[in-house]
Amino acid sequence: MAIPHRIRGVLSPVLTPFNSDYSISEPRFVAHCRTLVDLDVGLAVFGTNSEANSLSVPEKRRLLDVLIDAGIPPARMMPGTGCCSISDSIELTRHAVGAGCAGVLMLPPFYYKGVGDEGLYRNFATIIEAVADPRLQVYLYHIPPVSQVGISYALIERLLKDFPGTVAGIKDSSGDWNNTLGMLEQFQPHGFDVFAGSEPFLLQTMRHGGAGCITATGNVNAAAIAHLHASWQAEDADSQQAALNAVRAAFQRLPMIPAMKAAIALQQDDPEWAVLRPPLVELTPDQARQLKEDLAALRFTPNAAVGAV
Amino acid sequence: MAIPHRIRGVLSPVLTPFNSDYSISEPRFVAHCRTLVDLDVGLAVFGTNSEANSLSVPEKRRLLDVLIDAGIPPARMMPGTGCCSISDSIELTRHAVGAGCAGVLMLPPFYYKGVGDEGLYRNFATIIEAVADPRLQVYLYHIPPVSQVGISYALIERLLKDFPGTVAGIKDSSGDWNNTLGMLEQFQPHGFDVFAGSEPFLLQTMRHGGAGCITATGNVNAAAIAHLHASWQAEDADSQQAALNAVRAAFQRLPMIPAMKAAIALQQDDPEWAVLRPPLVELTPDQARQLKEDLAALRFTPNAAVGAV
Repeated sequence: MAIPHRIRGVLSPVLTPFNSDYSISEPRFVAHCRTLVDLDVGLAVFGTNSEANSLSVPEKRRLLDVLIDAGIPPARMMPGTGCCSISDSIELTRHAVGAGCAGVLMLPPFYYKGVGDEGLYRNFATIIEAVADPRLQVYLYHIPPVSQVGISYALIERLLKDFPGTVAGIKDSSGDWNNTLGMLEQFQPHGFDVFAGSEPFLLQTMRHGGAGCITATGNVNAAAIAHLHASWQAEDADSQQAALNAVRAAFQRLPMIPAMKAAIALQQDDPEWAVLRPPLVELTPDQARQLKEDLAALRFTPNAAVGAV
Repeated sequence: MAIPHRIRGVLSPVLTPFNSDYSISEPRFVAHCRTLVDLDVGLAVFGTNSEANSLSVPEKRRLLDVLIDAGIPPARMMPGTGCCSISDSIELTRHAVGAGCAGVLMLPPFYYKGVGDEGLYRNFATIIEAVADPRLQVYLYHIPPVSQVGISYALIERLLKDFPGTVAGIKDSSGDWNNTLGMLEQFQPHGFDVFAGSEPFLLQTMRHGGAGCITATGNVNAAAIAHLHASWQAEDADSQQAALNAVRAAFQRLPMIPAMKAAIALQQDDPEWAVLRPPLVELTPDQARQLKEDLAALRFTPNAAVGAV
């Protein structure tokens, strides 16, 4: 079941460009977001690959305002608003809903480990009740390899029951296809939109009725990933998927966030694009050389139009 | 080597009391801090046991101001100011130094896992350079069981070399005595104050020249822990340590933060003291019953004076 007007397709946790003093480069951010939207990739700003947890709440509020002031449509945005502190999550979620964003992507609070579903339920329920806005569409963010705190099926079931129409879907970044498949079978029929957490699972997700994917590599391979989403029933879908996987592999064999920033820095001849906030660091010269070689071998240029070489 | 004027002894990551709507109860917080200071326990406000990562930056700034306005001496305070976002860490650290706090206790950024020492070094160095205040005393916070991101000896060595007089010590909550001992041997002689992360290691830490301990149970067993610190060379030190360990065990067999809040709620006949912010939850009725029995068997009353029963 697909609910009308809900955001679907391909989204990307948008990279956040910094200046060399670690301040945010708003012009680069706006330009990059515009590129992605033009290539039909939605903006999951403030995700893991955005270094979102390296940004403060005021920085995130401001970046959202800057995008909207630049005329980028909030209907294409699903900002990350789930923080460790429920007061931060409420503030950011309220701001995103007020700005007209299509939805919000919510990490569970991730400092305390081994917490139970009751505490996570209270976290999401308290945020939803505090924001108290019928426009709110909550997408849960399941990424146990990083957050170490996951979203169980039982938690989804309870939230869906208590907040129908508000709890709208999930990004599954478990890396475990069986987990995604289970969600597709159990929850997608109830209008709970399942997004794969990366594009290697995009075609399978679409074939099982899912909503699309929210993927890091959307930052650099936007057009091709969006094209597979748009044409997943075409005859060449499997070969499209294989081509996406090859590009993904070139980035994934290196630390991905630095690698994506390095690829854009290289393409735009703008070394400052490669800056990361601590605790992340840029690629080593050896890694940068390897990336350059791998991408050349694939004839890959970041965010070229489909069919361009 | 002990540097004059540095804070030493027993500190506690002060519990943060909430009202039942999860707002902060400032009157309970001030009263609890006053009790601890009166019992000679310093205030490591905004630690793990403070649910600090469930508080926003503005909430933490305000709580610090509230304490100081209440006349509680900042020389007894070591607030936690290490956040995932370097901009938050800089803001909180600057605020704490400006308020005259004895030091700050800094978690490494803890969202990204598997980060290297270079990125962690840049995090701490950037904060220290941005705050740029000779009064700043940084205590590193090593708690890998929760943060999953730790502080290596190599990182301490590099920070000590580059920021002598500013990088002042560590709270070792690894739970691994050999790790604490190594730090005591390698770094304490250079004026780097090693605090055990809990009082079961207090006597050993003092016997190896350490600075004291920063311990959760300081919230409920303040006088007795402070007494051992003050009299660690006394003949009864080992039996004092054994008595502390028995109380610790009663709390540690349950989820500790809820158990400490429940003990205070019980003693003060104030059920609201037991409220926790999500994702943490209060003790179950069975757990609460067990705690009551265990503490009764030990004739334990939270924060009674030493010798009182």
